[in-house]
Formats: sequence, structure tokens, C-alpha cells
Amino acid sequence: MNYNIDHNRKTRIGFPEVIYGESKDVDTLSNILEETLKHSPNALLTKLQEEKYLKIKDKFKNVFYDLKSGICIVGNLTKNKKRNPDIIILSGGTSDEFVVNEAFYTSEFLGLKAKKIIDVGVAGVHRLLDRKEEINKAKVLIVCAGFEGALPTVVGGLFPQPIIAVPISIGYGVAKGGHTALNSMLSSCANGLLVTNIDNGYGAAIAAYRIVKGLR
Amino acid sequence: MNYNIDHNRKTRIGFPEVIYGESKDVDTLSNILEETLKHSPNALLTKLQEEKYLKIKDKFKNVFYDLKSGICIVGNLTKNKKRNPDIIILSGGTSDEFVVNEAFYTSEFLGLKAKKIIDVGVAGVHRLLDRKEEINKAKVLIVCAGFEGALPTVVGGLFPQPIIAVPISIGYGVAKGGHTALNSMLSSCANGLLVTNIDNGYGAAIAAYRIVKGLR
Amino acid sequence: MNYNIDHNRKTRIGFPEVIYGESKDVDTLSNILEETLKHSPNALLTKLQEEKYLKIKDKFKNVFYDLKSGICIVGNLTKNKKRNPDIIILSGGTSDEFVVNEAFYTSEFLGLKAKKIIDVGVAGVHRLLDRKEEINKAKVLIVCAGFEGALPTVVGGLFPQPIIAVPISIGYGVAKGGHTALNSMLSSCANGLLVTNIDNGYGAAIAAYRIVKGLR
Amino acid sequence: MNYNIDHNRKTRIGFPEVIYGESKDVDTLSNILEETLKHSPNALLTKLQEEKYLKIKDKFKNVFYDLKSGICIVGNLTKNKKRNPDIIILSGGTSDEFVVNEAFYTSEFLGLKAKKIIDVGVAGVHRLLDRKEEINKAKVLIVCAGFEGALPTVVGGLFPQPIIAVPISIGYGVAKGGHTALNSMLSSCANGLLVTNIDNGYGAAIAAYRIVKGLR
Amino acid sequence: MNYNIDHNRKTRIGFPEVIYGESKDVDTLSNILEETLKHSPNALLTKLQEEKYLKIKDKFKNVFYDLKSGICIVGNLTKNKKRNPDIIILSGGTSDEFVVNEAFYTSEFLGLKAKKIIDVGVAGVHRLLDRKEEINKAKVLIVCAGFEGALPTVVGGLFPQPIIAVPISIGYGVAKGGHTALNSMLSSCANGLLVTNIDNGYGAAIAAYRIVKGLR
Amino acid sequence: MNYNIDHNRKTRIGFPEVIYGESKDVDTLSNILEETLKHSPNALLTKLQEEKYLKIKDKFKNVFYDLKSGICIVGNLTKNKKRNPDIIILSGGTSDEFVVNEAFYTSEFLGLKAKKIIDVGVAGVHRLLDRKEEINKAKVLIVCAGFEGALPTVVGGLFPQPIIAVPISIGYGVAKGGHTALNSMLSSCANGLLVTNIDNGYGAAIAAYRIVKGLR
Amino acid sequence: MNYNIDHNRKTRIGFPEVIYGESKDVDTLSNILEETLKHSPNALLTKLQEEKYLKIKDKFKNVFYDLKSGICIVGNLTKNKKRNPDIIILSGGTSDEFVVNEAFYTSEFLGLKAKKIIDVGVAGVHRLLDRKEEINKAKVLIVCAGFEGALPTVVGGLFPQPIIAVPISIGYGVAKGGHTALNSMLSSCANGLLVTNIDNGYGAAIAAYRIVKGLR
Amino acid sequence: MNYNIDHNRKTRIGFPEVIYGESKDVDTLSNILEETLKHSPNALLTKLQEEKYLKIKDKFKNVFYDLKSGICIVGNLTKNKKRNPDIIILSGGTSDEFVVNEAFYTSEFLGLKAKKIIDVGVAGVHRLLDRKEEINKAKVLIVCAGFEGALPTVVGGLFPQPIIAVPISIGYGVAKGGHTALNSMLSSCANGLLVTNIDNGYGAAIAAYRIVKGLR
Repeated sequence: MNYNIDHNRKTRIGFPEVIYGESKDVDTLSNILEETLKHSPNALLTKLQEEKYLKIKDKFKNVFYDLKSGICIVGNLTKNKKRNPDIIILSGGTSDEFVVNEAFYTSEFLGLKAKKIIDVGVAGVHRLLDRKEEINKAKVLIVCAGFEGALPTVVGGLFPQPIIAVPISIGYGVAKGGHTALNSMLSSCANGLLVTNIDNGYGAAIAAYRIVKGLR
Repeated sequence: MNYNIDHNRKTRIGFPEVIYGESKDVDTLSNILEETLKHSPNALLTKLQEEKYLKIKDKFKNVFYDLKSGICIVGNLTKNKKRNPDIIILSGGTSDEFVVNEAFYTSEFLGLKAKKIIDVGVAGVHRLLDRKEEINKAKVLIVCAGFEGALPTVVGGLFPQPIIAVPISIGYGVAKGGHTALNSMLSSCANGLLVTNIDNGYGAAIAAYRIVKGLR
Repeated sequence: MNYNIDHNRKTRIGFPEVIYGESKDVDTLSNILEETLKHSPNALLTKLQEEKYLKIKDKFKNVFYDLKSGICIVGNLTKNKKRNPDIIILSGGTSDEFVVNEAFYTSEFLGLKAKKIIDVGVAGVHRLLDRKEEINKAKVLIVCAGFEGALPTVVGGLFPQPIIAVPISIGYGVAKGGHTALNSMLSSCANGLLVTNIDNGYGAAIAAYRIVKGLR
Repeated sequence: MNYNIDHNRKTRIGFPEVIYGESKDVDTLSNILEETLKHSPNALLTKLQEEKYLKIKDKFKNVFYDLKSGICIVGNLTKNKKRNPDIIILSGGTSDEFVVNEAFYTSEFLGLKAKKIIDVGVAGVHRLLDRKEEINKAKVLIVCAGFEGALPTVVGGLFPQPIIAVPISIGYGVAKGGHTALNSMLSSCANGLLVTNIDNGYGAAIAAYRIVKGLR
Repeated sequence: MNYNIDHNRKTRIGFPEVIYGESKDVDTLSNILEETLKHSPNALLTKLQEEKYLKIKDKFKNVFYDLKSGICIVGNLTKNKKRNPDIIILSGGTSDEFVVNEAFYTSEFLGLKAKKIIDVGVAGVHRLLDRKEEINKAKVLIVCAGFEGALPTVVGGLFPQPIIAVPISIGYGVAKGGHTALNSMLSSCANGLLVTNIDNGYGAAIAAYRIVKGLR
Repeated sequence: MNYNIDHNRKTRIGFPEVIYGESKDVDTLSNILEETLKHSPNALLTKLQEEKYLKIKDKFKNVFYDLKSGICIVGNLTKNKKRNPDIIILSGGTSDEFVVNEAFYTSEFLGLKAKKIIDVGVAGVHRLLDRKEEINKAKVLIVCAGFEGALPTVVGGLFPQPIIAVPISIGYGVAKGGHTALNSMLSSCANGLLVTNIDNGYGAAIAAYRIVKGLR
Repeated sequence: MNYNIDHNRKTRIGFPEVIYGESKDVDTLSNILEETLKHSPNALLTKLQEEKYLKIKDKFKNVFYDLKSGICIVGNLTKNKKRNPDIIILSGGTSDEFVVNEAFYTSEFLGLKAKKIIDVGVAGVHRLLDRKEEINKAKVLIVCAGFEGALPTVVGGLFPQPIIAVPISIGYGVAKGGHTALNSMLSSCANGLLVTNIDNGYGAAIAAYRIVKGLR
Repeated sequence: MNYNIDHNRKTRIGFPEVIYGESKDVDTLSNILEETLKHSPNALLTKLQEEKYLKIKDKFKNVFYDLKSGICIVGNLTKNKKRNPDIIILSGGTSDEFVVNEAFYTSEFLGLKAKKIIDVGVAGVHRLLDRKEEINKAKVLIVCAGFEGALPTVVGGLFPQPIIAVPISIGYGVAKGGHTALNSMLSSCANGLLVTNIDNGYGAAIAAYRIVKGLR
């Protein structure tokens, strides 16, 4: 079968087509990867399960995989060597890392400099205030939170940058699935928050790229 | 028709039966009031519409009415003259007053000393920190919030008292009806928040009464 | 009563506190406006009903009001005279103007140059393609849509700028209230869309301001 | 036990009773199949799990099975040899094949000529425009989409044929389960779309059969 | 302001752009009508409120209006004089007429011959069976139902034609808003039903037109 | 227009067709009434608005109307003179009367003997226990409750009769619309409760009639 | 630990306490069973998983288990030898048997005579009409249906007995979990249907017992 | 990696940071535990899976684990030796123990004296009345219930203490996930109930601690 890959997407809107790994089998993924690597030095797969990664690793060279997020990068990658990060990714706790990492590695794939600040949850707000100067240096803030999703609201009241809020599907009872965090971010009394789908660290990074690219 | 009023509720659980005003007509309300005032010096009606109040005012003596909340008290009321409030009622903004007042006047009806602190919303968290000492003196905190409902979470990380979180039906889009604020409070990462139904300032005051009564 | 207005918000995060007009009465609004105008040359009210505007107009000078959106600006306003717009606001049809205008006038209040392009709905996609060059000149795109909310997805596949998608509560049946448009935008297969609450044209403009300010 | 099979359905409404495989055990399925094949040259099972197929394969002759969709055809099948397809089945990506195939094989079972065009998602709309002539030749279009479900809307604005939109349960966060795609298709601003249940490729094919049969 | 009317839609997909009347003001509607009537002999408005109709009637010639459905046709209309209807519109009761009529008059606007059969609800199924011969003559069936929405299921088990099921927002409790009827039709055990949005009689007629046009 | 009234329903299942008054206009209602009264001594209309009643009263003889429930009976009615009630209708408070009365008057219309016991809500369970003997005499219990809907659960643990639980749309916040009461009754830990739609006092009475008729 | 078993329930309301097997471990179940069998000749467990049954079978005598429904009866059981069934249990297809059987065996446990009629789904309504005489002989009808849940509506229009409608969690897409069937039954236009929770065959049997007991 | 543990939480609000075990891996948990035990004699983990406990047991001394609730306490614990319990935890049945135990062991970790009373469900209300005197001695009542969640309503009508209602995710159909119990408790007609998230026994204990601490 032929795959209709959108090779001219990078020219058109600045970044290549990305491969959603979760619901494709390994054969399909391999075919798409081969086709993509004919036109591009590397390729990004998102939400890839570990058992599929293990098979892809055997078929391709230079395969990077992050177990927590399921991000997989096939091919060469040039790291951005800037000192100040373009993007700082904030989150309330270590349970959020599967999304934080998706945003982090997608950012690096796109050539941005990213930095993670984990464990600055709202229940101990002093931890956030202690790192104010550092956070002020980034161009865009990606703020991840599960449960009640209040972290972006507090960040939005303290910092002037564009803020991308990412709800996370961590929590139980009414927080299950991340819908409470999502709705909380959408209806925040802090002005000008922008929101992605639940667990969409990847989309947050692409959005940050759209913003940062305009700045350069 | 006879009304089966639960006159011994005050003996049994410490506070009298209260009359839900919203869905009863004036005749029914008048009959219930007359019956109640035979056994009690006063009576409390909640969520009473103004047009009904105007008719009730003409039939009974000593009728107090708060237009914002629809609280109506018929009969005598002895104010608590303590200096420090038993309860402080916090909220994010002036739009919340219809619930804040319901909690405030119900508390006074029950003989508690209450105080309101409006406009300490999370988007400017310094306003809350400035009044820390004053808030520390209350025995119970009632925290009202609409939209994303983040205020109780921040309060819960700063203060040790029992915290009663009241979601408010202020907001639009996903915040409409108060369900986002409710879910946000229920799934808060601040520990030990207790939550009431949306707009239930009255229930929050009764719950505060159950707590404060044990303290005396 | 004193209002705890957050006067230093402009210094802290770059734009002043804005007044949510929908659920406050005229007296409260007047007091807040007076207090605000002591520290600021102008003030913005959102979702203000016409009958309240008519009373506010009599009490203050220089009152601008847009009937469709309910935006009200009290005080002086300096228009941005740039030729190319900072922001282009796209929408599918004339029914969307109550939100398009909220974004438009808030942008102007914040000193940005904004432009509206109405009636480029997805059912006739050629209308969008015809204006490609013009749209490419803006720094940020705000894309409003009700019903199935597909416009931001198509825009996201054609343009490289930051895209702020605003779901609109126009529609009936499953589209009622704007939740279908919201969910459609959040789960778009076009990468890097950022989403606001339903009908939140005001928040979209603030977010655009956070982005454009970094570009200058 | 006797099974009340509706043998005269084909006479009455033109197509035979079909067997929903997902929630029946192999014994039940075998009995129903035996009963059906007494009156009909073949039988169609939908959403059949692989482990059940393996057992059925051993008991019956001429068993066709498609792993992706779970479609199973027992008995002889005469392929339609027309050159132009009656039905074209469009979809946004390879993740949709489990439903695309269900529609495809059900169509063939019913004697229609079907054709699949995968990977014409909205984020790269040129891929759809490139195949306009080919698509114009079909009598009915079945359009499958997960995530935000925008493909049928774009197709509906470009083509005059009857359009059967099939929402697919591919996606995460608010797209989980396919409800966003479903609602998006139901409230499309493209006129005259007709919608089936989520993942119901089988029902889409039956509906197409009802339409095409009238044309002949 | 200029309106971007999609004048070539009729050439492209066979029927003209239609005007959604519910959320536009009279001035906007008049401008759009004027613009439309330059290119077309007539125009269709849907879900138009009576007070708007009364003003439009004064500005245009040949204005037809149906109070129940809010359908408004401006300009000349040639009635289809065929004996057998292309479309039969079935419904369970007189409460459904606001949608039945929307489908009926839209069909006539498009040049189809339509017929209404009201009051054949499922609770007395003999009423439907009595008219079997008549119903068999139509090319397409539009079946409207509120409450539990079972009528299309019964019709689908009895008739071989294409069936367009239209859920109606008649009912209370769990039936309120029409969502139960919608879900019931989508998950019908009768095969090959096709469904529109709640109350979308207009869309059902367009869909019927797409089908019937292919037959001629 | 002719109305397809199901005149033989009484013969078939024991009770006549009833007219849903809420969404029909007065002309339609009058025509249906006239048609019905040709075959039957009386007719029942449900959920009829007062302004429609006032017009119907002028056109027909012997019109009974209950303002709270909107029940309207046209024609003669023979009261059941038994001493013990067939049905006892229980409810938690006076706000529930609009549904209690619907059940009560429908029961009387069907020739059953009914009795109302209001104000036995769960918050004062002794009120229910005090009337145990009286309640034990009825053949069927209809139990109405809004808010959390706990009354049928307590009744179900105390009484052996068939229990028909009717959820009521009284309440605010999460209780709004009656869905919490409905779900509470459906998932009751008291065994063998049977539930109707929200506010469906009429359906409860018909169901009671189906039961009692078998007993005689 | 002691278990507070409600031994006098049978005296109070006519049937014994039943043991919900799904969420208890085998030790807990064994203790409760032992305690119960001291006061009663037998005990009923519902929704018991097979692996637990296998352990219970080894500890107790006379253990009956139905794999499809998870019903388990421990102890002696006297079968009712009447010729005509008290209860007929109808359903649309063989997928419904896990609930049909739960109702069937619970009825037998309670001493009722029950009969099952499977495969009379609405898509072939003649199958139901063919068995009209037989169905008319039962005192109570239990009608089970998944998907769109239309069977009780059709039954309700044809038969005069008490009808207990049981929604079943069979279906996919919008039918998933059984909520569509539930809502469909609650809002049926057939009068006087009574509804249980989804998959609650057990509760339906208890309710039937409450009805039949009054008849004897 | 460093963990930003909030060591001064105990000083600030009276109880230490607790570790949410469910979504963290064993390495992360071990690091956090080591860090915590440097500043505190013990640590509490909630909702910990058994397989993780088995690994933690090997790395730390004095590890207590409760299989039902997943509560894990690492380090020394001083039991409260008071005779009367501070807290009584009530529930309807043995299925609720996974939450009852979470509340129980968290209370003990915080130095409170707790007691469990299981199996006092509403369907046999006498079991609750029999233990009235004992229950009256506690300072706070935690009331757990799944299914329809009526127990806190009945308790609230009988006892004057602060009542913390904990909804439990036990049940099927509409009760699945615990949302019915939650909504039922929030909208209770018993006054002054306070509610936690579904299954949040841990939060209930912290809230009880906030109350009891004020009493001493």
C-alpha cells in the first residue's frame, strides 16, 4: 500500500508530519518511517508502546526512545546549544513526567532549547516563587497539571510570557481522565491561558515552536 | 393541609429545620412559617425570590431579607458579640456575593460570628498573603469560588483550619453552572478540603456550625 | 465596601485587571470603575449587558460600547496606526461576530492592530485560499468557529503562525453551548492549535498580546 | 435452544440478518451459522475476535477473516466486477483501517463494488483535491474520521453525492471513544451529511446498499 | 460590510447556500438576501423567528413563512407536480411538526415532491402497518421522533429504502433536548439507519436531495 | 388534518391514549379532544399550561384542572369509593406536589383510589415510621423525591409492596434537573425498586394501574 | 469480624438479604454464607466471578452456578411446578443472556415460575407477534434490551401486564455501557413502563416478586 | 534528580506531605521516601499497588501495608491510646473496606483514635439505630457509601457532629465509578454534610484531623 505522506508540510507550515504511534502496527510504522526518511533526516513518533519500539530499534539506526512518554526519534538530531531555554516546562509532581517528557523531546526534535522544572505544585506555592528569576528568562512557558489543574492559574498571575496549559490524566474520582484539569484551565481567572488536549505534550511543543519561530 | 414539620430537629441534631423557599408558593410558605413560629422564636428561608419576600413582609413581623442571596429571616435574632470571628468567608470577587451572603446570614442566624473577605482571587495571590494573620484567627474557613475554583486549593496549602469549599455557578462556557469549580475542589491537591453542593452557602454554614459547636 | 483591585498587575504581567461585567450590578461596576480610573487612563469591561451600559454611559466620560459583544471601554484609547495587523481574526460566518468583536476590541484596548475576516467557513474552502497572502502577514491568528468547529483545523494545515482557536456557542442539538466546537479544536489533527474557553474572545486577545509583546 | 433467525429479512428489506460477533460465544455463533447457512449461501459476522475466528475456521468451509476489522464471511462470495466503484471509502489515516475495512468487506458481501482511499486527512487538504476526479465517479461516499472528525465536512463542501460520515474511536483526551468526531459530524456546517454510530462501518455499508439499490 | 456568499455552491455540489436565520439580526439577513437574490431566483432561511419574518416580509416580495418550523422562502418557487412523492416524512405525533415541516418545505424548495404522514407512533404499531403500500412508493424515508426515538428502528425493520432518522427535542427528564432520541437512532438494531443532528429537518431534506438526484 | 388516534388502545392494553399537552397548541388539542370524546366519556391531558387550560375550559364541558401539575380532565369522572387506597403516594416535601398531583389525578382518572402523604422526608425518618400501619394497607407505593432521592431507598427497606420511585426535578447544583435523584433510585441498595422518568407522575400511575388491575 | 446480616429482612419485606458477589473476596463471602445458612435454607450470590465460584464450590454443599450471569445459589431449592409462568423474560438476542439468566435464576430462587423467550428483537417485529397468546398468560413481563432499547416500548404498546424494562450494557459507540437503552426505556412513549438499573436482572426479579406476591 | 519535597508543610498547616503511590515507579518512590525520612520519623504512601509494596518492604525498615486500601506506612508509629474514638468511620457493607481502611490508617498515622463500624446500610436502618449511643461519643463521623450513597443522609438526620461523606466507586450501571453516590451526597436534604472526592478516604482523614486538632 502507498502512504500519502504530507512531505511538503515542513515547507508550508514550518515543521514536518509527525507519526502517531499508538494505534498503528509495527509494519505500518516501518513503512511510513522508511518513506519519511527518504525526504527528511529524522522522524518523530508519539505515544509509542515499548514492545513496538523494541522491534523498530532492530530495523532502523539511531533510534532514541523515552519510556515514560513513548516518544521515539529515528535518525540524527542536532541539539540546540543556547544557554537560556526557549521553553520552560513546569509541572506539579513526578507523576506528570509522561507528558512533560513528551513536550521536552518534541521541543528538542524541533530544534528548540527546553528545560524541565518538576515538583512546583500549588499546595506549596513558595517552591514556585523561589525560581521566579529563572522562569522569567524563558520565551514560552508550558505548564502541566493533573488533578484540579490549578498550577497554570497561579503561573498566569505571576508571569507575562505566553502560557500553554497542558491538562494531565492523573487523578481519580472526578479527576479521572483529566477532564477536571482541562476545564479548570479553560475557565481560569488568570487571563490569556491557552490550552491543549489532555496529555498533549507533543501539541504543546509544536505550538511553542510556532510562537518561538516568530520571535527569531 | 397539615405540614409535617420536624420540630424536634433542634433537640436531635442542634439546629432547626430550614425552609427551602425557591420552589414553594407564598401560601405554602406562609402556612409553614406560622406553624414553625409556634415552636421557635425565628425561622430561616433560603433562595427566596424578591416577589415572594414582598408578600411575606406584609404578613409577618421582623422580616429581614438580603436581595443578593435571597436569605430571609422571620422573627427575632440575637447577634453574637464576640470579637474574633468563628468563621471567615473568603471569595475571589464581587460576583460571588450571592453565595457569600447566604453563608454569612445563615451563620448569624445560627448564633455564630462571621466575617467576609471578598476579592482575594488567585490571579493576584499577594492579596491573600497580606491578610494571613487575620485569617489565622478564625476557627473555620468557608472558601467560595466560581470559574476554575482554585482559591480553596491555595488556601488549603497555607492554613491549618477546617476548610469548607463552596463552588459557585459563576462563569461561562465550560464553567457554566459551577461544575468545573466543584470538580476542581473535589480533586484538589491541597489535602483535606471538604466540599458542598454548588451555590450551597447555607449548607456550608450549617456544617461550620456542626464543627464550631464541638469546639465550645 | 472596599475593592481589592490588583493595581500592580500591569507592572507584574504587562496588562491591567479587566472587569467581568456580566454578573455585577451597576453600583458595584461604578465603584470598581472609579477606583480603577484613579490609577489607569482607561478600563475594559467584558460581556456587559446593554441596560447596564446605558446607566454607565451617564456616569462616565468617553464610554465606548459594542452591542454585539458587550465590550465596553471607559476612558481614552490610543489607536495603533501600523499598516500590517498584528492579529487577524477569522471566522466562519456573521453569527460569530459577538465573539469576533470581543477579541477585536480587546486587542485594540491593549494597543495591538487587529483585523477581522468574516465568512471564510469550511463548507466553501476556496474563500479562505483566496486570502492566503493577506493572512500570511499577521503575527498571530485568532480563529473563531461554532457548530463543528472545523475552521481552525483547516487554517492550522495551511499557515505557520501561532493559532488561537476560539469555540463559539452557536449551534443547536449536539452543537448547543459550543462544547462540540471546543472538543473538536482540542482534538484537531492539525498540529499545535491552542484553545480558549467557549466564547472567550477576550482571553484570546490577551493571549495574543502575551505572544506579540515578546516579538517586539 | 432454538434461534429465532429472521430468515425472511432479505425478502422484506433486501439484505439478510447479520451476526454481531463480539458478545456471543463460539458455540452460540456456530449454531446460528449452521442455521443461517441452511437458507443462505453465505453469512456475515461483525466485530469477531481473532480467537473465535480460529475456532470457527475449523468448523466451516470458505471462511474469510480480516484481522483489522474483525469481519468474517462464511460461505461463497461473488465479487462485483464493475470498473467504477459504487462506493468510495475515504479516511484520514491508517489508524482508521479497522472501520474502513468493516465498511469495505460488508459492501463486497452485499455485492457492491467498493474502493478505499486512505490518508487524505484535513491537515493536508491538497491530497484530497488531487483525487477529485476519481472520487466524483462513485455513487456514494463513506467518510471515516477519528479525532476532531473534520474530513466529512470538507468532503461535503466539495462533492455532490450522498455522504455517509462514520466517526471513529481513535484519539485520546476529549477525543477518546469517538464522541467528539460523532458530534462534529452531526453538527457540520456542510449540508446534508448523514451519520452512523461510532465505528459502525458495517451500518454505513448497509445504508449505502439501501441507496445504491434504488439507483439500479 | 461585504458578505462572502458561496454563489458557486450550486454548480459545485448541486444546491445553493442556505441562510441560518436564528442567530442573525434583520439587517444582516436583509443584506445577505439582497446579495443572494442577485444570483438566484429564490432563497431559503431556516429557524427564523416570527418577529424577524414580519420585518423581512415588508422588505421583499413573495415571502412564504411557516410558523411552526420557522422556514422562510423568499422569491419564486416552482412546485414539483409528480404524483408519487420522492420523500415521505413520517413522525410519531403532532408535537413533531416543527421539524417535519422544516424537512417538508426544504424538500419543496429543492424541487422534490414530499408528503407528510404524522401520528404513526410506535405505541400503536398497527397505524404504521396500515399504510405500508403507500410508504413503499417513496424513494427516501425521513423518520422524525422525539422521546425514546424508536420509530426509525421499527420503520428500518419493515422498509428497504434509504432511511434518514431525525431526532427531535421533544420530551422531558432524560429525553430533554433530544439526546436520548439521537443516541437511540445511532445505536439502532435495525440496519443501515442514517442520522442527522437533533431537530435538523433541513439537513435531512438536503441529504434526501443528494440521494434522489443520483436516481434521476 | 386527520388525527390517527389509537382508539382501540383501551381494548388492547386496558387504558386509553392520553394527550401530552405541553408541546401542542390549543387548536391541535381541541381537535384531538373532540375526536377522542366521540369514542370515550372523558379524556386526560398532561403537563398542560394554564393559559391553554383557560381556552379549553371555554370550549368543553366538565373541565377539571390542577394548576400545580397541569393535569386536565375533560368529561365525566366516576370516583372510586373504596375505603382503603389502592395507591399511596409518598413524598419528601411540599415542593414535590406538582408531580405528586400528576400521579394522584391520573390514578383517579383510571378509577383507582389514591392517597397522598406529603412531608415524610428522610432527614426526619421518624415521620415515616409513625405512619407505618397506614402505609402497609396500600397495594402499591409511589414514592416521589427530588434532591438526593433517598426516600424510596428507605421505604424499600421497610415495606413489602411494589414500589414505584419517581425522581423529581427539584434541586440546584448537581441536583438540577432531577438526574441525581434518578440515578440514586436506579442504583438503590434497597431491592426491587422500579423507576420512571424524571417528573413522570403520570407514567407512575399507569404502571400502578397495570399492577392493581392484575390483583382484582 | 462480625457481619451485621439483616436476618429479619424476610419477615419485614418478604425476601431475604442477597449477597453482592462482585466486589468481595472469597473469605468474606464464605463467612457471610456460613452466617446466612444458619438462619436460612439457602442463599443467593449475584455477579460472582467464576474463579470465586470454584473455591466456594469446594467449601459448601449444593452449589449451583450459572456461568453467563454469575448467579450462584448455595443450599436447597424447591422448584415451582405451576404450568403457567408467573414471569416471562423477553429479550432481543442471545447477547442478552447474562442478564436474562440473572432474572431467571433469581425468580426461581424466590419460588416463582419463570420462562425465557430470547431473540424477539424489534428489527423483525413479526417474531414477537407470533407469540402473543403465550405472552398474554404471564402475570409480569421482564423485557431486556441493549443497543437502542426499543423492545419494551413495542411490548408496552401490545400487552396490558406490568412491564419491567431492564437495559443491558451490550453495544458500542453511543450504546456503550447501556445508558442509551436506559434513557430510551425511561422516556418511552409506551405508557407505564418501569425501569431498573443497567444489567440489573436480579432487581427486576425482586420487583416482579413484590408484584406477584400481592396477586396470590 | 532532586525532589522538591515540601518539608515545612507540617509546621505550616500541621501535617506532613503525603506520597501518592499509584502513578509513581518504585525508584521514584524510594528516592522520595529516603529524602522524607531524613526530616520525619515516618511517611505515608496512598493507593500503593501490592507489587510495589513488596519491593519497598525490602528496602526500608518498619513497613506496614494494608492490602485492601493500598495504604503503606514506612517508619515508626505511636498509637493513640484514648478510650473514646476521635473518629468513627461508618459504611454500608464489606465492599467499602478499601476506602474505610484508607481513612482508618491515615487517621492513625496522624495520631488520631479511629474506629470502624461496617455493615450499617440503609436497607436495614435498625442496624444504625442500635448503635446510636456509641456513635454519639465520636467527635467526627466519616460516612462511606457506594451505590446510591444514602447512608450519610440518614446519619445526617440523626447525629449532630461534623459529618464527612465519602462516595465510593462500588456499583454498576448508573452507579459505576461512584458519581451517583457523590452527587447524592452533595445534594442531600440532610443539612451540613461535607463531601470529599470519590474513594478519598485519605482526604477525609486529613479533614477530620483539621477539625479534631482545633478541639484539643
